[in-house]
Amino acid sequence: MPTKVSRSAGFLASSLTPSTAITPDSDSFLEKRSASSSYSVEEVPLDALPNWRIGDRLSHSSGRFFAVEGLSIRTDFGPKPEWCQPIIIQPEIGILGIIVKRIHGVHHFLMQAKMEPGNSELVQYAATVQATPSNYQRVHGGRPTPYLEYFREHAGRRIVFDQLLSEHASWYLHKRNRNMIVEIPEDEHIAVADDFAWLTLGQLRHQLERGNRVNMNARTVLSGISYAAQDDADSYGDIRDPFRLQVVESHAAGRSNDEVSAAMTWLIDQKSKFSLDVRRISLGEMDEWASGTDSIRHRENRYFRIVGLSVSATSREVGAWSQPMLEPTSGNVVALICQRRAGVLQFLVQAMIQPGLTDRLELAPTVQLTPGTYSGPEDLPPLAEYLDAPQSWIRLKAVQSEDGGRFLHADTTHLVVNVPEEHTIDAPDNYRWMTLGSLNRLIRSGHYVNVEARSLIACLL
Amino acid sequence: MPTKVSRSAGFLASSLTPSTAITPDSDSFLEKRSASSSYSVEEVPLDALPNWRIGDRLSHSSGRFFAVEGLSIRTDFGPKPEWCQPIIIQPEIGILGIIVKRIHGVHHFLMQAKMEPGNSELVQYAATVQATPSNYQRVHGGRPTPYLEYFREHAGRRIVFDQLLSEHASWYLHKRNRNMIVEIPEDEHIAVADDFAWLTLGQLRHQLERGNRVNMNARTVLSGISYAAQDDADSYGDIRDPFRLQVVESHAAGRSNDEVSAAMTWLIDQKSKFSLDVRRISLGEMDEWASGTDSIRHRENRYFRIVGLSVSATSREVGAWSQPMLEPTSGNVVALICQRRAGVLQFLVQAMIQPGLTDRLELAPTVQLTPGTYSGPEDLPPLAEYLDAPQSWIRLKAVQSEDGGRFLHADTTHLVVNVPEEHTIDAPDNYRWMTLGSLNRLIRSGHYVNVEARSLIACLL
Repeated sequence: MPTKVSRSAGFLASSLTPSTAITPDSDSFLEKRSASSSYSVEEVPLDALPNWRIGDRLSHSSGRFFAVEGLSIRTDFGPKPEWCQPIIIQPEIGILGIIVKRIHGVHHFLMQAKMEPGNSELVQYAATVQATPSNYQRVHGGRPTPYLEYFREHAGRRIVFDQLLSEHASWYLHKRNRNMIVEIPEDEHIAVADDFAWLTLGQLRHQLERGNRVNMNARTVLSGISYAAQDDADSYGDIRDPFRLQVVESHAAGRSNDEVSAAMTWLIDQKSKFSLDVRRISLGEMDEWASGTDSIRHRENRYFRIVGLSVSATSREVGAWSQPMLEPTSGNVVALICQRRAGVLQFLVQAMIQPGLTDRLELAPTVQLTPGTYSGPEDLPPLAEYLDAPQSWIRLKAVQSEDGGRFLHADTTHLVVNVPEEHTIDAPDNYRWMTLGSLNRLIRSGHYVNVEARSLIACLL
Repeated sequence: MPTKVSRSAGFLASSLTPSTAITPDSDSFLEKRSASSSYSVEEVPLDALPNWRIGDRLSHSSGRFFAVEGLSIRTDFGPKPEWCQPIIIQPEIGILGIIVKRIHGVHHFLMQAKMEPGNSELVQYAATVQATPSNYQRVHGGRPTPYLEYFREHAGRRIVFDQLLSEHASWYLHKRNRNMIVEIPEDEHIAVADDFAWLTLGQLRHQLERGNRVNMNARTVLSGISYAAQDDADSYGDIRDPFRLQVVESHAAGRSNDEVSAAMTWLIDQKSKFSLDVRRISLGEMDEWASGTDSIRHRENRYFRIVGLSVSATSREVGAWSQPMLEPTSGNVVALICQRRAGVLQFLVQAMIQPGLTDRLELAPTVQLTPGTYSGPEDLPPLAEYLDAPQSWIRLKAVQSEDGGRFLHADTTHLVVNVPEEHTIDAPDNYRWMTLGSLNRLIRSGHYVNVEARSLIACLL
């Protein structure tokens, strides 16, 4: 759904403008790149993974990449006061970076068609750079990471966004990546490698709406784009879809310091209310989990499994490799409820404790549903009934993949439900209505918005 | 050293103004309150503490208050790649709150004369409220906490400052307290209880300069006072001490978003450079430490001891209690080097990994010296030679106590060294010059400035 926007606008609006795009067809580019390489992905037993060892923990012989350990959790948030689970330990901070450049006055994002073995759709648009130090220091002996220098040697660059943001905190312990957007001058030459393409924000939105075509790492970076430079709501007047107009307005609105300060104070209230105590333990100490030589799995097959994957590809830094993957039970759903309230579109977010969060609690979507956690309808979280909202309320429904470098077949249905004004929504105390503008401010401050919420917000670009 | 400031100024300057103060003599008030109660503090064996149990961990039978466990640490920051140490686990978020009110136009802070058993000077000025949930929910069956409602039920209040800030990250694991300043209207009546007094910022500064009279919890709250409302450097013209004038200017300067953004990016660079891996273990797993029934101590008596303390007092919520305390080896020093650079007074801070930090790395003072860590002069950290700077460079030297509710005889020498402009200072890459204005912005964002640096900054008020 490309939209036309007046050219007088700033960063956002100019990016929305259809242009003589460098990548005229963002659909076929991905298909072509996908067809240009061949891949094979096969599940194997954990003890068949070369260089990986399973014992108290599952780890690589180099000590790099990542490890899987046990985690013992106690909390007074949610229905379950204590449990154990496997968790991925990856202390390294990866770089997720997008290069942006005005081309004929329109912002374009340099996206990479990237294969990730865990994705249901293997090849998707990724950030320009998506690399951990283990990758870019070439522990696996692979090829160098293109464009890395724009983010590693950033002195003198125009850094549009730079923040450490959390990753899936049910699966990773204290994992964060560095999310960056670097803008290069219009006249700076940059060679575009085979797997790369310049996309406008409009093209990215189209790919996001199709689902399973913009990977998780790209989505989290895109969620940090600020509308702050763009104060004039009139310049969005050409956006004909009334819902999208409201989205843009709610992004531009509510950026006052007062609203953000009040939200911060409320967040600290929530952090003071709930406790979280985590302790790293050995895999064998988890009674409810079976840690075998083939896989690590819950004894009732709930939540997720840790399995081995053997991958060969011609388009990655190395041609073939093996690694453990986390495969969640299927049926993950994240949903944002929004509503026009006092004339402004607002989004209902919840303060949620998750075991792997660095700072224990962040803002999550209205509903964040992990099927393994719930045995029956009586276990469903608050507001889950809105997942069955009337079709006319659904403003976005798309399946998006989680990080296909760690997670196998982790497809999450993304849902945005626009509830009519006259409908009253009863939410518990740890829920709050916020504008997209305020949420964007909190994303850009780090530590405050979880990856599930950021992924949904990226879909609202 | 009370100073006179023109009355036209805003928050800060009016607070500096000498006034017909409600507490005409802040010195004698503290002495009188100290004399009005009697205290006895006695070291006892850990196994003589009622309701405390020592085993894999040292903990209270209620499960509340705090516990001491072992921590295993690996890091590539600093000279030591791995070690084990006891650490205090206290997941509860305490409230450190100061009520502020204009009286005759001048800001006054409601301070409490409070006894803490670990302090060398037992009674000091504390925040209006300094309480953990275990305290104010009266787990120990004590008296209610006065003024708590101003911070717990803050709806409609003017919240001047509200942030979660880290505590001593060498001694506590992931401990943060909620630092708050709440301003009440000039015409709102508030009864002043016996142990409480309204002090101006000038009086507080005088107490800070004397040393050991403003406790650690009050200092960290005071470090969050913003000069942002006060842009007109001219209004500080009456501050006759040229150094203090420069301090005020450097607080007002450098508040541009660009300078703070650049500092944030540099901080993320530093976080990406260094790793920290911590794991909670049992007390018995620490080879270098002897965990006995009397105390927990390092086998070479370095770093600190965990001991029992039996306390009786007439001015606390309960009349008598016992608790474990951490007693550091003596001789802790923290120092900030400052220098007028390109016309602006700047402070040299370092990005430092500490095992107990929630987000692994924060800004620390130029020198943060824990004697137990260093066996000889060859082990001294960078720039330690400035601790012996010429007397004429020393702008502040005062001994301040750490939190006397957890730490015994923990006196830290605070030093501010003003190095002349012509002198060249060579600092490693993880050091950065910053204005007090930028540091203040980072304090107010949480997560970025450690308690040692905040304590020094409070002394520069």
